[in-house]
Amino acid sequence: MDISNPSDVTEITPSARIDTSRHGWRAKCLQRLIRMDLPVPRSHAISGDGVQAIAAGQAVPIDAFKGLFDSRDGLVGVRPSAVTPEWGGPGTVLNVGINDRIHARLAARIGPENADAIYLNFVQSYAIHIARLDPDMFAQEGKGALADALRCYCDEMDEEFPQDPYLQLAGVLRSMARAWEGPTARLLRQAKGAPADAPLGLVVQEMALAMGPGLSGSGSIQFIDSVTGTPRVTGRFRGQHHGGAVGRDAETLYLTRDQRGPSLEEVAPGIFADLVRFGVAARERLREEMQIEFVVTEGRISIIDAVRVQRSSRASVRIAVALARDGVIPEDEAVMRVEPRALTDLLHHQVDPRAPRDLITRGINASPGAATGRIVFNAATAQASASRGEPCVLVRRETVPEDIRGMHASVAVLTERGGTTSHAAVIARGLGLPCIVGASGLVIDSRRRTMQAGGRTFREGEEITIDGTSGEVLAGAATLLEPALDDAFTQLLEWADAAGGIGVRANADTPEDARTARNFSAQGIGLCRTEHMFFDADRLPAMREMIFADTPEDRRLSLERILPMQRKDFTALFEIMAGLPVTIRLFDPPLHEFLPHDREGLRELAESLDLPLSDVTRRVDALSEFNPMLGMRGVRLGITVPEIYDMQARAIFEATVEASRKGDPVVPEIMIPLVSAMREVELVKNRVDAVAAAVRNERHSSFTYRLGVMVETPRAALRAGDIAAHSAFLSFGTNDLTQMTYGLSRDDAGRFMGTYVGQGVYAEDPFHVLDRDGVGELLLTGAQRARQQSPGITISVCGEHGGNPESIGFCHEAGFDYVSCSPFRVPVARLAAAQSAIRARREER
Amino acid sequence: MDISNPSDVTEITPSARIDTSRHGWRAKCLQRLIRMDLPVPRSHAISGDGVQAIAAGQAVPIDAFKGLFDSRDGLVGVRPSAVTPEWGGPGTVLNVGINDRIHARLAARIGPENADAIYLNFVQSYAIHIARLDPDMFAQEGKGALADALRCYCDEMDEEFPQDPYLQLAGVLRSMARAWEGPTARLLRQAKGAPADAPLGLVVQEMALAMGPGLSGSGSIQFIDSVTGTPRVTGRFRGQHHGGAVGRDAETLYLTRDQRGPSLEEVAPGIFADLVRFGVAARERLREEMQIEFVVTEGRISIIDAVRVQRSSRASVRIAVALARDGVIPEDEAVMRVEPRALTDLLHHQVDPRAPRDLITRGINASPGAATGRIVFNAATAQASASRGEPCVLVRRETVPEDIRGMHASVAVLTERGGTTSHAAVIARGLGLPCIVGASGLVIDSRRRTMQAGGRTFREGEEITIDGTSGEVLAGAATLLEPALDDAFTQLLEWADAAGGIGVRANADTPEDARTARNFSAQGIGLCRTEHMFFDADRLPAMREMIFADTPEDRRLSLERILPMQRKDFTALFEIMAGLPVTIRLFDPPLHEFLPHDREGLRELAESLDLPLSDVTRRVDALSEFNPMLGMRGVRLGITVPEIYDMQARAIFEATVEASRKGDPVVPEIMIPLVSAMREVELVKNRVDAVAAAVRNERHSSFTYRLGVMVETPRAALRAGDIAAHSAFLSFGTNDLTQMTYGLSRDDAGRFMGTYVGQGVYAEDPFHVLDRDGVGELLLTGAQRARQQSPGITISVCGEHGGNPESIGFCHEAGFDYVSCSPFRVPVARLAAAQSAIRARREER
Repeated sequence: MDISNPSDVTEITPSARIDTSRHGWRAKCLQRLIRMDLPVPRSHAISGDGVQAIAAGQAVPIDAFKGLFDSRDGLVGVRPSAVTPEWGGPGTVLNVGINDRIHARLAARIGPENADAIYLNFVQSYAIHIARLDPDMFAQEGKGALADALRCYCDEMDEEFPQDPYLQLAGVLRSMARAWEGPTARLLRQAKGAPADAPLGLVVQEMALAMGPGLSGSGSIQFIDSVTGTPRVTGRFRGQHHGGAVGRDAETLYLTRDQRGPSLEEVAPGIFADLVRFGVAARERLREEMQIEFVVTEGRISIIDAVRVQRSSRASVRIAVALARDGVIPEDEAVMRVEPRALTDLLHHQVDPRAPRDLITRGINASPGAATGRIVFNAATAQASASRGEPCVLVRRETVPEDIRGMHASVAVLTERGGTTSHAAVIARGLGLPCIVGASGLVIDSRRRTMQAGGRTFREGEEITIDGTSGEVLAGAATLLEPALDDAFTQLLEWADAAGGIGVRANADTPEDARTARNFSAQGIGLCRTEHMFFDADRLPAMREMIFADTPEDRRLSLERILPMQRKDFTALFEIMAGLPVTIRLFDPPLHEFLPHDREGLRELAESLDLPLSDVTRRVDALSEFNPMLGMRGVRLGITVPEIYDMQARAIFEATVEASRKGDPVVPEIMIPLVSAMREVELVKNRVDAVAAAVRNERHSSFTYRLGVMVETPRAALRAGDIAAHSAFLSFGTNDLTQMTYGLSRDDAGRFMGTYVGQGVYAEDPFHVLDRDGVGELLLTGAQRARQQSPGITISVCGEHGGNPESIGFCHEAGFDYVSCSPFRVPVARLAAAQSAIRARREER
Repeated sequence: MDISNPSDVTEITPSARIDTSRHGWRAKCLQRLIRMDLPVPRSHAISGDGVQAIAAGQAVPIDAFKGLFDSRDGLVGVRPSAVTPEWGGPGTVLNVGINDRIHARLAARIGPENADAIYLNFVQSYAIHIARLDPDMFAQEGKGALADALRCYCDEMDEEFPQDPYLQLAGVLRSMARAWEGPTARLLRQAKGAPADAPLGLVVQEMALAMGPGLSGSGSIQFIDSVTGTPRVTGRFRGQHHGGAVGRDAETLYLTRDQRGPSLEEVAPGIFADLVRFGVAARERLREEMQIEFVVTEGRISIIDAVRVQRSSRASVRIAVALARDGVIPEDEAVMRVEPRALTDLLHHQVDPRAPRDLITRGINASPGAATGRIVFNAATAQASASRGEPCVLVRRETVPEDIRGMHASVAVLTERGGTTSHAAVIARGLGLPCIVGASGLVIDSRRRTMQAGGRTFREGEEITIDGTSGEVLAGAATLLEPALDDAFTQLLEWADAAGGIGVRANADTPEDARTARNFSAQGIGLCRTEHMFFDADRLPAMREMIFADTPEDRRLSLERILPMQRKDFTALFEIMAGLPVTIRLFDPPLHEFLPHDREGLRELAESLDLPLSDVTRRVDALSEFNPMLGMRGVRLGITVPEIYDMQARAIFEATVEASRKGDPVVPEIMIPLVSAMREVELVKNRVDAVAAAVRNERHSSFTYRLGVMVETPRAALRAGDIAAHSAFLSFGTNDLTQMTYGLSRDDAGRFMGTYVGQGVYAEDPFHVLDRDGVGELLLTGAQRARQQSPGITISVCGEHGGNPESIGFCHEAGFDYVSCSPFRVPVARLAAAQSAIRARREER
């Protein structure tokens, strides 16, 4: 009975060669506890190679365990030890080694009832997991159950229950080794990022008896609150509980003094003090908040295991910051310890994970956070509801630009259609509103003002809760947790910024956005979309008049009415940003977005323009497009109807003069959207230059500005060399670039994206995580060609990907200057940027 | 009076160094005539550098012309001589050198009246073109006009009319040199492809007197009919006509015997015979059909100029073929002589250029040829009209797939909206129907069944003519010329095919298309779109049932009803193509194209499916898309609703078995549309392989097939390496690829493409001529990566660009295997392919 390599089994001692990559995290953790002189029972580690050999049918290395069962009680436990706890592993099996002889000995020591419970526990485990017998046959507990179980085993297996401890151990090890190879375990751990050949280590540990006379039992203790991350002793101690077996006089104690009952602190102050001491030491040596598993045997402590404390997002931030502040880990390490996405949870209300959830339906979690409000089915009702001070949730088939003010008035948004980058999703993230899109289980009847889902009907005014973090729509008002923009959050991000890394700006269209951006320490505005500025009730009429104007002169006159308002918009932004760069994208959407499409709206428009309805209808029809995404918008409109850009340039420059007079000098950045050819840039540049010259003359001012291009078409990326010759900066609009590179409309992709990602056609939703292989190549090509042409050019990304940690890593590696994302993603981006920089430095070493 | 470089003026002698690139085509042509010993008057060539120096204000090189005016009559003419005749040049100025002294001498010789006419002619030219005086003041003719003109010149200029012939010449040369630099002349020649610094040469030639006693006069003769290209002497001889001056007893003669009056052939048979002899010699030596300008002076011929005969498209083919058949030029040269686009004119009826045109409005010439028919405003009326045998023209705002049968029933198509690759344009070219799109001057009222344009109203049933070659809509029935698929056409294309070059296949969706393709000797079908096959009245119901089916099984059942019809479609195609390759593109369009969108259609559909109207409406709404181009179509549908591709694969394979049994073995090529990721190809391949295996088993057959990918998304081009691993061929669908690379919908681009091309934002409409810089790079990258992965892979282009000569050149240079284009463009493509190959061979030498 030998296996090929005896080194596959190693007794864990302070000097043993225990290696996480071979023996797993648990074996390594136990060695560290041993090195700290904690009272850890004798333990052996089996390496991944050894486990693989066992699974493959090779003999179990019993010889390596010689004397294992010679300890006082003769029992051992076997626990999995993968490379990281996240990868899981087969269930622990305890009380291996028990047989009639040991049972008799135990009965004498701790009483026959307790001895029975322990023996029964192992027989059940063995019968179910190793012999693969029907669990129902071994479900019995209590008096007589042990005899029944042994008889049942014998009946089913045609042999007595194995009495040789080594044979028992061999069976347990083989069973656990094989479970690791099963397809379910494999899929589960691969979903957590484990490689296909991830090894499993196993730990075989002598068991301390947690039953018997005096204070005996088992427990776990941690020194931090898993939800809040603040220091607090939590856990439990269960007297007369041994390895899954519940003994006579079993009793659970609180750990610390508690009015509700006796506590370990009171009952055994010495033991409690030892545990606290062990906890402090473990935190220092393991550089982490640990949950410690322990056994008390007749008043003597054994430490049998320790695992990283489970933690909420906010706890993860507080723990990391506290460890660094206490000098346990360096600040950079604290920055690396927090998953960037976790920060998002801290910015918003969250549904309390401990509270009940009345699920209505699910959709795509398009914008995080949770909010409760009354259902409304259109923007007007939302505004009415908001003006009454009643929080409301806007529920729509999908949203269109006219819904924006309705969204402003709502606390959350729910749509039946759309994907993570649909209109609703993008706007909601910008506003920081919880949002669920693509909730295809919904049937909305906006006339009757009802929505149906899962057989239930909800009417306008009924309360629901949108959990934008999970994508769940809940009935009624769920219990919510407050945002946690506390001192630890601020501290972590300060350390992140100190770590260097790619710059982070915010996409901000309004003064509120800009203020949020500054609150989150964005380094500027990387994308200010200007089209929403034309939807205001006092601007839309002028806009429509402009669309219907027949001559450039008439268009200019209509736009002149909008000019002072645009100037005010920009002045406000410049003042809030106080000299930080502000990149303003010139008008982008197709004109038909500003026209009504229903009969009523058309009639009103005809009236206000004093034109026959048929004329208006024909004009509106003529402006409609088959594929608006690929139509007459962006710079195409800028060149065909140049009066719009003229007006915007003037508004920007006049605002520049005003804001610079009051505060820091402003150098506005003007960005041209949807460029596909260099000549487009030249033509716009000529006109914008002319406007700048005119404003300089009129205002006797000498401001400067930077003109750049939003790279959204594959052609602009390919021709970035030419384009860079006329541009101070290039900003990749990765939303549109992804759409065009894939030939995939983000608004229409929702219908099959699930299937596609599910079947692995796309590894990830490319609107969510930047597609390195396709879109990424265009980014690299574009940046390289642009830099070759003009080395000092600023390169950035301002699509949704600007807030995605993996994509930020990509941009950092590619040497881009900054990313720009929704204001509420700025903290995530800052953390991701820092991690990318730290990772790069570590790899350099 | 000297210029920097005396070599700028060269007397044209047989041995002089006359160079087309320096002295222009006319100087070179004259030298060739001189080398042939034709009686050409003494001539000097001024080089482009010389002309440029004159234009820049340097002195005119009078010394180089010493003795020029010493000839018998003392008159010279100055003609422009650009590098090619197409680039134009300033008008000829004749009779330079005349003054009071010469005038008196001439008066004695040819009579005072004739001498007056010649002097007056020059004074007019000089006053208007050199002195820039008001033409109205010099408009007088007849008795006393000369004296008036000389006085008027003196009054206006405060000096006598210049008497020094060299001063006159200097003025004429300077004026002509400067005219060449003018912005209009520059724009006109650049539109013909001239470079910005195109030089102008000038020719100064002594004039032979075409007035006087005996047979004197001027004329031109050519030996070929400019419209038909058949041999025929045409031209005129005008007695007593000298250089724009009409003499006493002026009389025009026919050249050849004519019942209507006297002819040169009869009056001066010797001179006529000489002209014919000169003509034959010029054709041989100049290797071209020439129009010869001549003067007869008292019975003596002078040849003063010769130019390439003007010719129609059909004449250009006949001339080139005849020259090669006569051994004057090699066959390859004949192939090079014909502009590929000209062939298109031969395939279709054309509006007779000599007939009157009653223009209604203009649009984009989307599909060439001309046809007359009665106006109809919808497909149903078109079909009714066709069934009555009345040719009709379908007039629509724009066309949609449901209009296809209406288009089949029409002789031409006219749409208000759309560009060269809009639905109407693509389908019309496929059908070989004349088509005008984007006729934005039209106002169509389809309810009242009228269309308005240019203030006129046309009702349904009125006759119009569509000139798809020019883009003109004409009222009434214009006179049409028949197509010219004659022997010369066939011969030229045979030579073209013999020249080698890239392969040419046809895009053919129907048996008629396939037959046209074979008639035009296409080497196979490069793109068979299958979606039209689902629009037939007997298939659409099953298709809609499939769309509304709730389970895969129901979908399969609906599709099973279409299977036999699809099988028949493919069998017919395979049989017509008789073993030539046929590439079938799997189903591509979004499903909503198959659903009605009007109330009536929805109600009928609800009835036929036995579903509530609200259900049907909701389902139809749910399928609608924001950007159908970028939506749920192509392989995305193939993967999400795999039953469609399963059915099509089965139909293809069953047709393969049937067609192979009757004739040549068929190896079908199956093409997957809209691929953006390799895994899409794998998934479809797995299912298609399974269907093939099933059909092989059922039919006991052992056919093979080739599976390939239509590369339409930029990502597919970038990932062509991966994709090639699973593909036997890649075919670039350059229409969609252009749309996505530019972010530009072909259906919506019409609105600004005019402005864009006009302002030079895009050098050409990229849907018309392949964009080498952007889309072209993706083609090259894709092809290179695919070949690196699998060197034997077949690479082709199957978009509209497959029929565009420049784009064919690109594909040839890139080493692609074939291009595929509309059947009616196959001849153009064959010729362009040959020219590209010949050009490449010539450059290699």
